[in-house]
Amino acid sequence: MDAALAARSLLEDHPYGWSLPQPFYVDDDFFALDMEHVFAPNWVFVGHTCEVPMPGDWLRVDLGVDSVVVVRGTDGEVRAFFNTCRHRGSLICLEAAGHARRLTCPYHRWTYNLDGSFAGARYLGDDFDGSDFGLQPVHCQAVAGYVFICLADEPPDLEPFAEGVAPFLAPHGMDELKVAYSERLVENCNWKLVMENNRECYHCVGAHPELMVVIDEFDGPGSKVTPSEVEAKARTVAAWDAADIVHTQTTAGGNEWRAVRIPFVNDAAAMTIDGSPACARVLGTIDDSMRSLGSVRLLHLPNTWNHVQSDHVLSFSVLPISAGETLLITRWLVHRDAVEGIDYDLEHLTRVWKATNRQDATLAEQNQRGIRTRGYRPGPYAPAIEAGTADFTAWYAEQLRRRLPR
Amino acid sequence: MDAALAARSLLEDHPYGWSLPQPFYVDDDFFALDMEHVFAPNWVFVGHTCEVPMPGDWLRVDLGVDSVVVVRGTDGEVRAFFNTCRHRGSLICLEAAGHARRLTCPYHRWTYNLDGSFAGARYLGDDFDGSDFGLQPVHCQAVAGYVFICLADEPPDLEPFAEGVAPFLAPHGMDELKVAYSERLVENCNWKLVMENNRECYHCVGAHPELMVVIDEFDGPGSKVTPSEVEAKARTVAAWDAADIVHTQTTAGGNEWRAVRIPFVNDAAAMTIDGSPACARVLGTIDDSMRSLGSVRLLHLPNTWNHVQSDHVLSFSVLPISAGETLLITRWLVHRDAVEGIDYDLEHLTRVWKATNRQDATLAEQNQRGIRTRGYRPGPYAPAIEAGTADFTAWYAEQLRRRLPR
Amino acid sequence: MDAALAARSLLEDHPYGWSLPQPFYVDDDFFALDMEHVFAPNWVFVGHTCEVPMPGDWLRVDLGVDSVVVVRGTDGEVRAFFNTCRHRGSLICLEAAGHARRLTCPYHRWTYNLDGSFAGARYLGDDFDGSDFGLQPVHCQAVAGYVFICLADEPPDLEPFAEGVAPFLAPHGMDELKVAYSERLVENCNWKLVMENNRECYHCVGAHPELMVVIDEFDGPGSKVTPSEVEAKARTVAAWDAADIVHTQTTAGGNEWRAVRIPFVNDAAAMTIDGSPACARVLGTIDDSMRSLGSVRLLHLPNTWNHVQSDHVLSFSVLPISAGETLLITRWLVHRDAVEGIDYDLEHLTRVWKATNRQDATLAEQNQRGIRTRGYRPGPYAPAIEAGTADFTAWYAEQLRRRLPR
Repeated sequence: MDAALAARSLLEDHPYGWSLPQPFYVDDDFFALDMEHVFAPNWVFVGHTCEVPMPGDWLRVDLGVDSVVVVRGTDGEVRAFFNTCRHRGSLICLEAAGHARRLTCPYHRWTYNLDGSFAGARYLGDDFDGSDFGLQPVHCQAVAGYVFICLADEPPDLEPFAEGVAPFLAPHGMDELKVAYSERLVENCNWKLVMENNRECYHCVGAHPELMVVIDEFDGPGSKVTPSEVEAKARTVAAWDAADIVHTQTTAGGNEWRAVRIPFVNDAAAMTIDGSPACARVLGTIDDSMRSLGSVRLLHLPNTWNHVQSDHVLSFSVLPISAGETLLITRWLVHRDAVEGIDYDLEHLTRVWKATNRQDATLAEQNQRGIRTRGYRPGPYAPAIEAGTADFTAWYAEQLRRRLPR
Repeated sequence: MDAALAARSLLEDHPYGWSLPQPFYVDDDFFALDMEHVFAPNWVFVGHTCEVPMPGDWLRVDLGVDSVVVVRGTDGEVRAFFNTCRHRGSLICLEAAGHARRLTCPYHRWTYNLDGSFAGARYLGDDFDGSDFGLQPVHCQAVAGYVFICLADEPPDLEPFAEGVAPFLAPHGMDELKVAYSERLVENCNWKLVMENNRECYHCVGAHPELMVVIDEFDGPGSKVTPSEVEAKARTVAAWDAADIVHTQTTAGGNEWRAVRIPFVNDAAAMTIDGSPACARVLGTIDDSMRSLGSVRLLHLPNTWNHVQSDHVLSFSVLPISAGETLLITRWLVHRDAVEGIDYDLEHLTRVWKATNRQDATLAEQNQRGIRTRGYRPGPYAPAIEAGTADFTAWYAEQLRRRLPR
Repeated sequence: MDAALAARSLLEDHPYGWSLPQPFYVDDDFFALDMEHVFAPNWVFVGHTCEVPMPGDWLRVDLGVDSVVVVRGTDGEVRAFFNTCRHRGSLICLEAAGHARRLTCPYHRWTYNLDGSFAGARYLGDDFDGSDFGLQPVHCQAVAGYVFICLADEPPDLEPFAEGVAPFLAPHGMDELKVAYSERLVENCNWKLVMENNRECYHCVGAHPELMVVIDEFDGPGSKVTPSEVEAKARTVAAWDAADIVHTQTTAGGNEWRAVRIPFVNDAAAMTIDGSPACARVLGTIDDSMRSLGSVRLLHLPNTWNHVQSDHVLSFSVLPISAGETLLITRWLVHRDAVEGIDYDLEHLTRVWKATNRQDATLAEQNQRGIRTRGYRPGPYAPAIEAGTADFTAWYAEQLRRRLPR
């Protein structure tokens, strides 16, 4: 409660466009506020439906101290439950992913159906009523194959997001994907520094030589780079308009979510080390002759950004561990019929963002370390190039202002 | 004080037969309550008198942040003291065990007699009165070779326990033992989960293939397994009665301590991988022709269970480190005249419980992890098979209820 | 605030000449008091001016959670700043030392002049006023090449110290040194135990075989050792007086700082394994024929002691990390023209104190561990030989008494 009062007081004076006061990045009690008032009440991206294609397939997701299992039921529905047995609380699913006819606790073999209901256990006696002992449900909803969970009792409405992004994703065959590769990277920094870092490309020059092959540092619909680059982007956008490819940034999601299609520079086809295609098999209804689709930037706060491209999809899931530790899961998805070694090469597919993730982790960890000193003062985001970061911070502050107890 | 109020309030509503609310297993302040109100005021098992056979032999015991030295005096008495110098507080005994004519602090050579009294140091001046600077005593009492310490000013009465267990241990020559092997295993879980795990065998099937060779999952005086097993047990017990071997469970100790002799299954002689003897040399007054003595289950809360068998003794000492870490010390004791390699083979002697300890550690650690999630809810112990765990939790809750400040 | 009240109350009853109550050594909140009321308001020794000889040379110093950069400006002045960017707080200097024309943040390339003023950054817009965004300054002052910083707004006066030690250091050419070797040792104990350990030699016999070649355990102006040693020391001091070598202990600094020149035993020339010279090149105005200058013991609380000798200087910088972790940086300095392998051998130069530091670390860590037990009681320093430790503790207690809020 003390942390809540301190947070509320600090946010009252916090101006738009400035980084946050120190405790928001380093304090354990403030971290608990983030989990309670920012992560729990919102939809959090945790994986893809194609990772649980069959009934009984499950994914385990750890979020702070919580552990959740996402599982496809016999009816084909994807549901989520707390990964803790109703008997004595043991974890049920121990690996990152698996398959089971029923979910069985490894401790005393209490068993649950795939819809979370209690299925049976030995020695419970005749008057035991299993209907009181189903797994604790967690809200779960899929949009274009993205699985979101919400830990709160009353989740917000995810429909506007689903409707808003649908036209952007339509050409990309989001129901025909598979995960070609995934990476789990623990960064020793607060989750907000991972997000702040991603929301601007002010740091890209120098930091991201691989990434700068395909994007420019303004990386927005209105580029401020060289005239020839502006011209090239304009040509690409004109071609999209001619082909009815949706690209104009959504506004309905405010700072919380957005979709926008942005051209790559240098006529790049995909986020590879030379801009060449990442996969021979294009996605969905995309014509192989029209590779220059840039990427759909799909943002959903608090925890995901994405690059949906002509031949692969890159998704990022930011999962806080503690005030100073964050897990970033990156997934590279390709067409489900694409064949490794023939249609795509893993090294070529993953090289740019494997490198970029490591570079960003180093920057964010140095940021965290510097914020811990008593010399730290909140500073101004550069308006011309860090507006995305300013918007993220504004959204975050609004979440706390709205929910912190008075 | 806040944690004490929270604990008291949570225990008021806590029903018999259910696992405890989350903070009792994970919270650092609740852990401090355990150390203060459960461990400090009770007798805690820390080792065997045969580990300090000669005057000057000592054992170091770490319990939470405390460190205690158990030492045999020149008069043959075994005493305990805080392992911290009265000069500037350094640890005095650095190893797990040793021998010394006097206890000498390694820092400035302050020296103490084996009865804890100050023996001397250089440069202290003429008016220094050493009688004020003896080692801080810790209560220490031995029962059948088991050394118990109590950190409180006023220890409870240990006599009823000593008297109650004596007839069970009489045949086993408890004053003629030596430690053949000991193992220190740190489990990443709360100490209560180590105890809860031990108090039931509901989890044994599947988890403990080695152990299940010699016991059944009900592992109590009234087995509920197959008729032939029931019959075999009945035959064994009849033989015990004929030979005046005490076996009926004590009741005087309530939930706090108990002794009971329980037959093994499959006519096993000892807890070995095939039920064969663990040591050629039998203990005490046991007749070599009467190997089927099962094991005396000796329980003393908060921190020990035991298997006293015809040819060896297994003792377990549970020593909390922090809310989420516990040290389990297991000792295998044989007759002091038994010779390794001739009378017993270490691998054969230790195999079953080395394996069982590791299996239990994994289960308890998964239990701890699941309890940390916000989906955890206290669950019901299965009455038919987890009564021992329910009794442990009831005893624990009663300790706090009795001692927490109002 | 609770810790402050507790500390104030404990100090009211604390007698001179006794070690401190437990929480001063182990509690995290008490550690925060130390950083706020003992380290921040005082001058802290962090390195030597000869480590930043040229404009643009810098040293990074970490102190608790703080990080500071010490840098020589184009005007030759040595200044200090918090090592955190005014943009978003990233660390600016990542290594332990370096050189730069300007200090550039590795994150978004914000750049600062060597005097800390804002030098420039891209995309900030026309109305950005860089004069508000210089690095946060930290007070910095050099005395005889020793760099001190003070984190408080108003530093105390360092002049009395500078004046008091000048006559002692005059012969040693303190402006002609270079660092021949430095060592960073993390000790798992509170910083005060590192200091207490250093302020007495009661523990030296047995603990420090290498060091005892050149000093005796009383190691003060009035030795209490054998008559022949007393006589030898008297002869040395008489020679100093004849040569106008200042040696009598200062009194102006009270317990906070002091200088005194003390002879070595056995006619040793330097702190080496056999008392032989450490470096062929003597320092400053010292005559090569007069090697027996012992060492100037330079003490400045809270964090440094020193041995300024005829042919090298040993400096020690104690930098707290947390309640139970301390970094000790030891530097061996020789004449800047001395050549490694010709004038000095690194192994011979560093052997005694490398060994002594490790021995002391072990003792201090054992001290820390013993203080954590509930058996710890503050004990009396031996007046005859631990007066230095008593004075340190008294100075420390006075710092808190003076500054803790009522």
